[in-house]
Amino acid sequence: MSEYNLAPFSTLTEQLRRLPGIGSKSAARLAYFILEMPEKDAEKFTSAITNARKLIHRCKICGNYTDKDVCSICSDNGRDKSLICVVEDTQSLLAIEKISSIKMMYHILNGVISPINGITPDMLRIKELLARLGDGKVKEIILATNATIEGEATAMYISKLVKPLGVKVTRLACGIPVGGDLEYADEITLSYSIEGRHEI
Amino acid sequence: MSEYNLAPFSTLTEQLRRLPGIGSKSAARLAYFILEMPEKDAEKFTSAITNARKLIHRCKICGNYTDKDVCSICSDNGRDKSLICVVEDTQSLLAIEKISSIKMMYHILNGVISPINGITPDMLRIKELLARLGDGKVKEIILATNATIEGEATAMYISKLVKPLGVKVTRLACGIPVGGDLEYADEITLSYSIEGRHEI
Repeated sequence: MSEYNLAPFSTLTEQLRRLPGIGSKSAARLAYFILEMPEKDAEKFTSAITNARKLIHRCKICGNYTDKDVCSICSDNGRDKSLICVVEDTQSLLAIEKISSIKMMYHILNGVISPINGITPDMLRIKELLARLGDGKVKEIILATNATIEGEATAMYISKLVKPLGVKVTRLACGIPVGGDLEYADEITLSYSIEGRHEI
Repeated sequence: MSEYNLAPFSTLTEQLRRLPGIGSKSAARLAYFILEMPEKDAEKFTSAITNARKLIHRCKICGNYTDKDVCSICSDNGRDKSLICVVEDTQSLLAIEKISSIKMMYHILNGVISPINGITPDMLRIKELLARLGDGKVKEIILATNATIEGEATAMYISKLVKPLGVKVTRLACGIPVGGDLEYADEITLSYSIEGRHEI
């Protein structure tokens, strides 16, 4: 036996390897850990997965995760409804929300335009964004996609669609390290970049 | 909302954080990935966990993982039944089995003596090892616990129990970097350490 060829074990490690950041050695380590868990813990673990998937879905307005119809941000009347911050994903939303003194609305694109990965504009929540701008109540959108090539291109693409609607379009200011991922920006850098946002 | 307080999401990240090597940031990343999985993939994932736990158990002889009563190593008649290699866990067994030219038997202790972690000798599969030595057919055991303080102490403890039975007791040779984990030893180092094993 040069390989550990237990079918249920291989299946488990294969599944774990599909998770982001998990290589084959980590997958095996996790699999052993899962095998050794007390029965009760294993049940909690699988039911946490099943429950999260069953109960959590996207807010029908902003696309953020919620267990209600409309998320807690969209249903918050204390927010400036005339300002929408457009982000790639929930991680970016949380990073901004954590440091922002402006209580604004959000819109989650669910990714960025990336021809190399086969992500075209129609696969993002861009038409949902345009629909939110229809009633003229929104005065400004902040394009807070990551400062990557794809993030920039997506911001450009959206600004070209939104400007003709008479909505002010701004982009996060310099301050985010170029090529960096918004999720990992430190809070001060991120604060600066919101304060110094500029029209494009 | 300064925190993302969706209960099912928090539960999922908490469960993921309990996995070895997963911090809070990784746990959130994994949780998002799990939420975004297609339904079919999520089912495969949870059923891989459930199946592995249902089908895999410990071999009643050596303590290795198996989906049968007796594992493929213990039921292999081409092996030297007079030589048992005693290891901490399956990972160590696999690391040795991969490079060893000697086809021997194994015995998995399922850990090491570690008072600081509350692991006492009776919590390891030591009595099962002694039971295997009862019929006098085993001539030698190789103590292949990790070269850590706990691994050394466990080897000493077992050698004191086994020597009176007239069984030769050997320990992996120098070659494993001291303080190192056997699972991560390179193959040559590990080969040397088996070749140069010495009686203790």
